[in-house]
Amino acid sequence: MLAKQKLYEVIFEADSRGGKIFDISLLLIILASIILVMLESVPAISKEYRHVLNVLEWVITGIFTVEYSLRVLIVVKPQKYIFSFYGIIDLLAVLPTYLSLFVVGSHSLMVIRAIRLLRVFRILKLNRYTLAGRNLARALRNSREKIFVFLFSVINMVLIVGTLMYLIEGPENGFKSIPTGIYWAIVTMTTVGYGDISPQTATGQFLASMVMIVGYAIIAVPTGIVTSEMIRTSRSNNTQVCPECLYDQHDDDAVYCKKCGHKIN
Amino acid sequence: MLAKQKLYEVIFEADSRGGKIFDISLLLIILASIILVMLESVPAISKEYRHVLNVLEWVITGIFTVEYSLRVLIVVKPQKYIFSFYGIIDLLAVLPTYLSLFVVGSHSLMVIRAIRLLRVFRILKLNRYTLAGRNLARALRNSREKIFVFLFSVINMVLIVGTLMYLIEGPENGFKSIPTGIYWAIVTMTTVGYGDISPQTATGQFLASMVMIVGYAIIAVPTGIVTSEMIRTSRSNNTQVCPECLYDQHDDDAVYCKKCGHKIN
Amino acid sequence: MLAKQKLYEVIFEADSRGGKIFDISLLLIILASIILVMLESVPAISKEYRHVLNVLEWVITGIFTVEYSLRVLIVVKPQKYIFSFYGIIDLLAVLPTYLSLFVVGSHSLMVIRAIRLLRVFRILKLNRYTLAGRNLARALRNSREKIFVFLFSVINMVLIVGTLMYLIEGPENGFKSIPTGIYWAIVTMTTVGYGDISPQTATGQFLASMVMIVGYAIIAVPTGIVTSEMIRTSRSNNTQVCPECLYDQHDDDAVYCKKCGHKIN
Amino acid sequence: MLAKQKLYEVIFEADSRGGKIFDISLLLIILASIILVMLESVPAISKEYRHVLNVLEWVITGIFTVEYSLRVLIVVKPQKYIFSFYGIIDLLAVLPTYLSLFVVGSHSLMVIRAIRLLRVFRILKLNRYTLAGRNLARALRNSREKIFVFLFSVINMVLIVGTLMYLIEGPENGFKSIPTGIYWAIVTMTTVGYGDISPQTATGQFLASMVMIVGYAIIAVPTGIVTSEMIRTSRSNNTQVCPECLYDQHDDDAVYCKKCGHKIN
Repeated sequence: MLAKQKLYEVIFEADSRGGKIFDISLLLIILASIILVMLESVPAISKEYRHVLNVLEWVITGIFTVEYSLRVLIVVKPQKYIFSFYGIIDLLAVLPTYLSLFVVGSHSLMVIRAIRLLRVFRILKLNRYTLAGRNLARALRNSREKIFVFLFSVINMVLIVGTLMYLIEGPENGFKSIPTGIYWAIVTMTTVGYGDISPQTATGQFLASMVMIVGYAIIAVPTGIVTSEMIRTSRSNNTQVCPECLYDQHDDDAVYCKKCGHKIN
Repeated sequence: MLAKQKLYEVIFEADSRGGKIFDISLLLIILASIILVMLESVPAISKEYRHVLNVLEWVITGIFTVEYSLRVLIVVKPQKYIFSFYGIIDLLAVLPTYLSLFVVGSHSLMVIRAIRLLRVFRILKLNRYTLAGRNLARALRNSREKIFVFLFSVINMVLIVGTLMYLIEGPENGFKSIPTGIYWAIVTMTTVGYGDISPQTATGQFLASMVMIVGYAIIAVPTGIVTSEMIRTSRSNNTQVCPECLYDQHDDDAVYCKKCGHKIN
Repeated sequence: MLAKQKLYEVIFEADSRGGKIFDISLLLIILASIILVMLESVPAISKEYRHVLNVLEWVITGIFTVEYSLRVLIVVKPQKYIFSFYGIIDLLAVLPTYLSLFVVGSHSLMVIRAIRLLRVFRILKLNRYTLAGRNLARALRNSREKIFVFLFSVINMVLIVGTLMYLIEGPENGFKSIPTGIYWAIVTMTTVGYGDISPQTATGQFLASMVMIVGYAIIAVPTGIVTSEMIRTSRSNNTQVCPECLYDQHDDDAVYCKKCGHKIN
Repeated sequence: MLAKQKLYEVIFEADSRGGKIFDISLLLIILASIILVMLESVPAISKEYRHVLNVLEWVITGIFTVEYSLRVLIVVKPQKYIFSFYGIIDLLAVLPTYLSLFVVGSHSLMVIRAIRLLRVFRILKLNRYTLAGRNLARALRNSREKIFVFLFSVINMVLIVGTLMYLIEGPENGFKSIPTGIYWAIVTMTTVGYGDISPQTATGQFLASMVMIVGYAIIAVPTGIVTSEMIRTSRSNNTQVCPECLYDQHDDDAVYCKKCGHKIN
């Protein structure tokens, strides 16, 4: 019973020395396994070291399988773990290798293990990063409607511009179909600009210029949305109220009220 | 008479169950019709399924025609609807297909139906999105002058840089004329960078480098304009109205109207 | 004497009806002359309409010459006008055509006339645009040091990265010399990305990836500088102090103090 | 003894006339040496002027060697200087030329001298630029966690998207391996968009469109982070120090220290 609890601490928590070592080793193995997938995809390397890479992949998958089984066995409520975010990711990290026995190429999906790197935040000073992440998420969530309205306008613009360019330039200039035109419009509006398709006619270049200037200018809109939301979030993060003077806009690290010097909380 | 009112509720409003079903069906048909236009423009698909697509297009156009007629017949003041924003868009959504009987290719303009997707905001919680949209629009309207000054400077810069590059690089390096030079300047300044035209001489590359750094840095200007305006707007989200002069853009911490000095709320 | 004063009003001021007509005509002629330069540079058009364009160019230059002479003759202190910003631009607008009698191709410099379009702000509600322009300029001026520090870091980074890429990729992959490498670094860092030169080796692509992520992230720095400066500028624009409660952060359009309702001068 | 102190003032300080002249000369020599490295790398120039450039390089390296030796000899605590940031840079500025006697091509590393240009801030009004630099650095340091979380998400996204594109497009469309796919994902997400690799299949172009829109939108996140941090930093430009606990980052409207509750100023 005690051994099980000890194991639980090592595997699920990062406070004890053993837990820390376990977490760091796990991260290193995850990193190794991601590099492995990449190397395997490079033809020159894959040809030469096929066997070594293959063995390593199975070793790592074995470790992950054991780890996953342990987690399921040790945890008090296995069902809750299995269907939690981390539980699903842990399972998905194991499956691709087994799947590759049946489906060729599917083992590249192992790259999904990258998400397991999220565990890195457990080793770092957890709270500060969780707070940072939560603040980011809150700012994005709060500006949900504005971002939706913005994206809707962009998609509408892209649909119409893409079709117009298809009509103006036509298949002979690389705009083979309306979807291609829309693809070009997105490439241009987001200022990516591959150049694999680009307008050749004067009219097309003029319309493209308009699209670019618009795309260049409207980047200001999401930026403005997120920034103003972040400023508001970072300001109203702290809900403490000074018991003495009722001032309520304290910084996160405030211990005393900056207005009257009274202790807060 | 009652039937007419019921129909009015279904077609024009989104509160009742019938109205909601009507609006969602309409959105799905609009989406289907946009996908239809796209598919028709892909040569491989268009060749194979010409007949099916053609029939579908006429069916959808039929539905839209009926819908438009109903709207005109049911509404109390038809003229007001016909010349309203939505009225014009609804008409434009129908015309291209009929036009295609006379002008080849014009049915691609059906893509204008994308604007009808705006109705999606009627089904979603309307108020929050309208507010978000109105705030965005207000921020952009308020920074009108600054954006105009900014765009004016950019256009001036682009005109002069484009001409200089035409003189430096010349037609032998792809800068065939001054308009081409200006097109290149816009492509570069907005950081799109297709690469279909790019400077070859050392002088040209040096000038291009300057343009890029300037283009990269001045994106900060519209962003700053819109962001600072949005922060101001979000601050004055206050909905209080001065009982004396009816001014309605008060700061959150306002106690007296800044326009007439009357006490608010 | 009276005629001279009347002429002065028409030419130099935009308040009277005559002045407005004069300014608008001038703007249209400037626009026409810019379009003229562009058309002349397009080989197909230039070949066909050489004579018409040539005549038009001389007519417009004639008009500008007369206008410039009138300005010099009418103004009270000719020297002050001649060496003012507008005076120099007005002269430069005339010179290229005369110069083209001696130097081939120099008449393209006529494009400098674009700067004359600045006069458009005289016709528009002058004050609001001047204020907008001045606020923009002030925000940029105030963040001078930060922008300098930022640009210095960017140039340093670009110099070092450009040289490294030259050493890594070498002339065989298009990085012909260190200046070329630096040109590539600027093209990449500013996210323009022509693709005329791009890394081919794995090491080069890895370094390039780093540069891109850095370039993508540090755009946040000038944006942050300008935005925070603009917010500060727009806030502290008004230096009025309420005589009653000494509150000093009034909006630009405030007539009464929003805190105590007292009139602010 | 006095001579040594005088020399110290000239070399290490920029207040006296001698010190200023020394610093400016040094800057010019550094600039000359950077231009030298660039010219040497251009084949056409290098061939013609090989001897001149070679001699100049050794002259400049000689000057720098003398300068470095003087600095070491004159300074009171040589060890502290040698291992300081500037000491290491000064040494690195000299080494490449000597190294080039043994390793071919290594003299291009001379470009590291660019970092020595940092001395320019010593000549300019030092304080304002140091302050600007420190504020920038502080804003970036304060938003460390948020930027880390952001970069982590971006890297994760890039890994997964890169692999997916490798599976979708495959080597026949230029996605030769997973690292290449990741390289493409970075090029696209950062809106650089070389176009040396670009998706050819419909599925690939659809996924690419998603990536572009995401990349275009999330630039708002680092911008928001840095901007909101800068606004906060510029607000707390307050230089007051708490007499009790020496905390020095008070808000402008602070009356009591928020850390210990002691009255400030």
